[in-house]
Amino acid sequence: MSKISIGVLGATGMVGQTILNLLSNHPWFEVTAIAASEQSAGKKYGEVMASRWNISPEIPEYVREMKISECRPGLECEMVLSALDSSVALEIEQEFAKAGYAVSSNASNHRMHPDVPLLIPEVNADHVKLIDYQRKKRGWKGFIVTDPNCSTIGLTLALKPLLDNFGLEKVIVTTMQGLSGAGYPGVPSMDIVDNLIPYIKNEEEKLESEAQKILGKLSGTSIKPAEAAVSANCNRVAVRYGHTECASVKLSEEATEDEIIKAFDNFHPLKHSGLPSAPEKPLIYLTGENRPQPKLDVNAGNGMTASIGRLRKCNILDYKFVVLSHNLIRGAAGAAILNAELLKTTGYIGK
Amino acid sequence: MSKISIGVLGATGMVGQTILNLLSNHPWFEVTAIAASEQSAGKKYGEVMASRWNISPEIPEYVREMKISECRPGLECEMVLSALDSSVALEIEQEFAKAGYAVSSNASNHRMHPDVPLLIPEVNADHVKLIDYQRKKRGWKGFIVTDPNCSTIGLTLALKPLLDNFGLEKVIVTTMQGLSGAGYPGVPSMDIVDNLIPYIKNEEEKLESEAQKILGKLSGTSIKPAEAAVSANCNRVAVRYGHTECASVKLSEEATEDEIIKAFDNFHPLKHSGLPSAPEKPLIYLTGENRPQPKLDVNAGNGMTASIGRLRKCNILDYKFVVLSHNLIRGAAGAAILNAELLKTTGYIGK
Amino acid sequence: MSKISIGVLGATGMVGQTILNLLSNHPWFEVTAIAASEQSAGKKYGEVMASRWNISPEIPEYVREMKISECRPGLECEMVLSALDSSVALEIEQEFAKAGYAVSSNASNHRMHPDVPLLIPEVNADHVKLIDYQRKKRGWKGFIVTDPNCSTIGLTLALKPLLDNFGLEKVIVTTMQGLSGAGYPGVPSMDIVDNLIPYIKNEEEKLESEAQKILGKLSGTSIKPAEAAVSANCNRVAVRYGHTECASVKLSEEATEDEIIKAFDNFHPLKHSGLPSAPEKPLIYLTGENRPQPKLDVNAGNGMTASIGRLRKCNILDYKFVVLSHNLIRGAAGAAILNAELLKTTGYIGK
Amino acid sequence: MSKISIGVLGATGMVGQTILNLLSNHPWFEVTAIAASEQSAGKKYGEVMASRWNISPEIPEYVREMKISECRPGLECEMVLSALDSSVALEIEQEFAKAGYAVSSNASNHRMHPDVPLLIPEVNADHVKLIDYQRKKRGWKGFIVTDPNCSTIGLTLALKPLLDNFGLEKVIVTTMQGLSGAGYPGVPSMDIVDNLIPYIKNEEEKLESEAQKILGKLSGTSIKPAEAAVSANCNRVAVRYGHTECASVKLSEEATEDEIIKAFDNFHPLKHSGLPSAPEKPLIYLTGENRPQPKLDVNAGNGMTASIGRLRKCNILDYKFVVLSHNLIRGAAGAAILNAELLKTTGYIGK
Repeated sequence: MSKISIGVLGATGMVGQTILNLLSNHPWFEVTAIAASEQSAGKKYGEVMASRWNISPEIPEYVREMKISECRPGLECEMVLSALDSSVALEIEQEFAKAGYAVSSNASNHRMHPDVPLLIPEVNADHVKLIDYQRKKRGWKGFIVTDPNCSTIGLTLALKPLLDNFGLEKVIVTTMQGLSGAGYPGVPSMDIVDNLIPYIKNEEEKLESEAQKILGKLSGTSIKPAEAAVSANCNRVAVRYGHTECASVKLSEEATEDEIIKAFDNFHPLKHSGLPSAPEKPLIYLTGENRPQPKLDVNAGNGMTASIGRLRKCNILDYKFVVLSHNLIRGAAGAAILNAELLKTTGYIGK
Repeated sequence: MSKISIGVLGATGMVGQTILNLLSNHPWFEVTAIAASEQSAGKKYGEVMASRWNISPEIPEYVREMKISECRPGLECEMVLSALDSSVALEIEQEFAKAGYAVSSNASNHRMHPDVPLLIPEVNADHVKLIDYQRKKRGWKGFIVTDPNCSTIGLTLALKPLLDNFGLEKVIVTTMQGLSGAGYPGVPSMDIVDNLIPYIKNEEEKLESEAQKILGKLSGTSIKPAEAAVSANCNRVAVRYGHTECASVKLSEEATEDEIIKAFDNFHPLKHSGLPSAPEKPLIYLTGENRPQPKLDVNAGNGMTASIGRLRKCNILDYKFVVLSHNLIRGAAGAAILNAELLKTTGYIGK
Repeated sequence: MSKISIGVLGATGMVGQTILNLLSNHPWFEVTAIAASEQSAGKKYGEVMASRWNISPEIPEYVREMKISECRPGLECEMVLSALDSSVALEIEQEFAKAGYAVSSNASNHRMHPDVPLLIPEVNADHVKLIDYQRKKRGWKGFIVTDPNCSTIGLTLALKPLLDNFGLEKVIVTTMQGLSGAGYPGVPSMDIVDNLIPYIKNEEEKLESEAQKILGKLSGTSIKPAEAAVSANCNRVAVRYGHTECASVKLSEEATEDEIIKAFDNFHPLKHSGLPSAPEKPLIYLTGENRPQPKLDVNAGNGMTASIGRLRKCNILDYKFVVLSHNLIRGAAGAAILNAELLKTTGYIGK
Repeated sequence: MSKISIGVLGATGMVGQTILNLLSNHPWFEVTAIAASEQSAGKKYGEVMASRWNISPEIPEYVREMKISECRPGLECEMVLSALDSSVALEIEQEFAKAGYAVSSNASNHRMHPDVPLLIPEVNADHVKLIDYQRKKRGWKGFIVTDPNCSTIGLTLALKPLLDNFGLEKVIVTTMQGLSGAGYPGVPSMDIVDNLIPYIKNEEEKLESEAQKILGKLSGTSIKPAEAAVSANCNRVAVRYGHTECASVKLSEEATEDEIIKAFDNFHPLKHSGLPSAPEKPLIYLTGENRPQPKLDVNAGNGMTASIGRLRKCNILDYKFVVLSHNLIRGAAGAAILNAELLKTTGYIGK
């Protein structure tokens, strides 16, 4: 079987770099095109990135000699993974979809469009069927699927087994988000050394709306959002990788701590899926009183596992806990790749 | 008028150092004795602290030549400010009170004792009267008053005008607490550089119980805790000074954002009190979308003002906001001193 | 006496902000004009800076309503303090000088021009006379003086008493420079949290050449650089304010540690100068074994005093020591202002 | 072949933890005993370390159930790797050697003893022969070998090819050392967040003397130290792993930059040694203008490769460069293991 050809849009940013790293030896996918802004177009990736590559010691060998294209249809590939900035992603992604490409996007622009799946394969793989309606409605040969905001994904993974087992009514969450979530150059060091910023533009809105859509039910050609209301407080802290979130939840049914931990532990919808990027377990519950911590837990499951800890009673809602996930991997690059893998097993690409 | 003589217990720790700094030129108080653990006792403060003083460039001149005593009654002073560690504070503070000293304590041990005032002068100055009952009940010549935990005080200041104006039913709060709150040596650097710790031992319990007592009503010889339930998530972050807290509140009555901001702005119960350490305003509301921030706002009102920002609707409770206060000043040293000033104006010391 | 009118070029950057802060209540100077890039021109400073002011809690009141001009001659002032970026400073500063303005610049562009004084008033106040030659040669009504690079100034202050007392032949220095030295947004947080960067573009060259010029002798219309060779290693570290430098020096004559410390302590050329921004002492020697440290010592002398410590024998050259100075104040904003004050007392402005 | 049995002294500290991690699947060695202080003795490692293990997410499975012994001869093993603190290492290590154990120590106590090899296998493997004399002189059945201080080892690796190819006369080095070098709890966070400390107790003395011994020549029963003088400035910075050092060197012979880089690149004395922990290359030269950096380069060669960059002319000595190495691996745990491997191939253990 030949590999599915992949183009990476926004290949020079931190998410793009991470995608290229993760696809270094992917069993199903092969990077055949990379694209970025006009300034970089026409140059070799290795040259452009010599002083900008900053997520690991070395640019992967396979991509160093590849020439950077502009972000326009014409790339030689079946699918594009988009790590574009939201300031430009809307139109570019639509052009690619119109031109027949499958688009797995990490940008925020299309996430809340009613006909665009906002996917976490462990949570709402069936939403992928929305693609058929999307194509029909928009008259596109290709299509767009999206992955959630980096602060949404860890929380939503944790909420899913609660919803399934006990019903879920309310969520209040406060995040402490890593610096890499803001891209590069991102947060100026003068703003964050010995400081924190209790504000991330548009982040709370995303967290509050995306979780509801992901946890919602596909019914015909639309998704009925979950009823669970979410209220979010988003903060930036001096941690490079990992978003840590303190969540309080109100469940529909009574549950003991043991039952909840068991629900977290047993949550493994992709167990037999064979998706290469699916972690052994999407959730792990840590019993240490001071866990999860970014320095210890951010790379669990190669960055694809969300770590939960500190489950305890909440005086206002029912329970509270802490969840941590890797914002660049589980929350961005790995999410786009896992979605692409789902697209293959569901027959939307690689036929 | 001669100044009131003050002893400082636990004078070598960070809170003790801050007390000594703040009392450098106090109009009412004069430090006449300093006490610490046995290892330091008998030595000059300047010598013991030569390599340990770490909150400002220089040890205040007035205290350098003072000899450190042991923490036992016999100190030449009318009142002691206690910055003792909770592992030793219980007995020592009781011995001082028994021996006739007024004790203004920053330790947690006595805070929740039913006959011990847990004071924030702007919030519950009238609780000071509990002293009379405490003395009677315990048969002490002296007495003990306490100030709240460093994460309690900023939040409680913010809650008080809400309670008074609109009634207060529920509070969910997530803290991001500065390193100095853990004392010295406190948090190892290996645990916090490029990391955060979603756990502070006993801190959530303190925050949840202390706020209710402080906001409660004195009735006869006991305090009826406020009914507002509090749920807390406490985190340590890589910020040296300042505790930042994201709070969601449920009010008893409807209120607009403007009304709430006005309530914060108008809150100034000590306006005409003449207490030297009372800030011009105990609360300031900042309109910047990313405020308050430790680096910009922690020293507001010489560290005695709590800064509030980001008031907005909460999807679960009614409103949410961010509050920041200086944990070493408003949350510890300055709190103990302000309480001492209240004791003077209410006639409990300095007669 | 009416105050001398001052314009600030590059008023929106961190150095510009610091100049505006320091001139808030200056006894000799009054800010009458502020200028910045085209995008800001025409707007009120308070509005432009609402979310960009980041060196202190509040924009000084006096400047909030001032309208920002473009950086072109025509500003209503006698002198301009230039905090322009070196990418644009060369031409703009020359235009101002040509148009008759006195220019006290913090930019690097003119520093090494043979007819431009590179001044540290405590070190080479007499170089100011180069202005006469500069004007004549260039046919300017105005003139330009410069202050050194932020890593040069602390070291050069420390070297001057060594040169004067013992002769100075060689200097090897390794710097650990604060983040604010790179301006704003400056160093991305992803590059410096849990990291350091052993490279600052052009910095070593500046340090090596500027020190020689400043320590050089004015002879007629030119400055003969000091013979002391300097070799520099420049590093960026995760400290917000303060450049710390480890220097080894070879002296011409033998000297004891005591003699050297005495030379540092006695160094006070501006003692009777009356310059308002001159610190009580430009150098202080700290005896603590682990001093100077940014957190404790960076603000010595209101940020205008360089702190020295750890003088000891060097196995290769003669002695080594550590020197720390505030890069934004002593190394930039305060330096430009002190130079301006020198210009007044030497009659070049304010006649 | 059965594996050589290893005991780890000081197994609970950060170096001990790292040794246990590195020996998880070692082809030659098997951990059969672990020892620590009295408080921990008698307990299971997994229990004692549940909240103290802090260098990786999980305690290696093989060691969790092992019982901690006291640090006294009697451990069932042929060799001990000592990660003891220098406050106790002297006597304990001697007791083990006397009792017949081979001791590979990371403590500083014995390093400078004339009859104790201070080893870096790539640099002075032949010094291992000193063991014979040591045993004879001390009448020990066992023996002690040591590895260098964590700041010595990276520098000395870089100096060795310079010495061999061009002769080496003088070295001035300024270090910026990671926090893990101070152990745990080590540096208090209040001392290092937004700060640096220009002092590490005894560190400069170690660096200055150890390099000379390691680079020295074994002649009969003694080591003649290298003549190259070293002057060191040691600083602590807010980096968790990695010591970065700026070095200036004076060579005996002229050399071009290319020749020096070639000397670094060609340096590979253990190429055919088969030592399992020897990295592919002990030195790599990086051409990026801002390399090496801890975040990118500290783990080169699984933490056993020192990364060099920025080779350039020095105005005072001949050349300067930056070298970075992993203080916990190359500078401590990995060094002790590599020494143990050398002992096996030279027949001192595992016969």
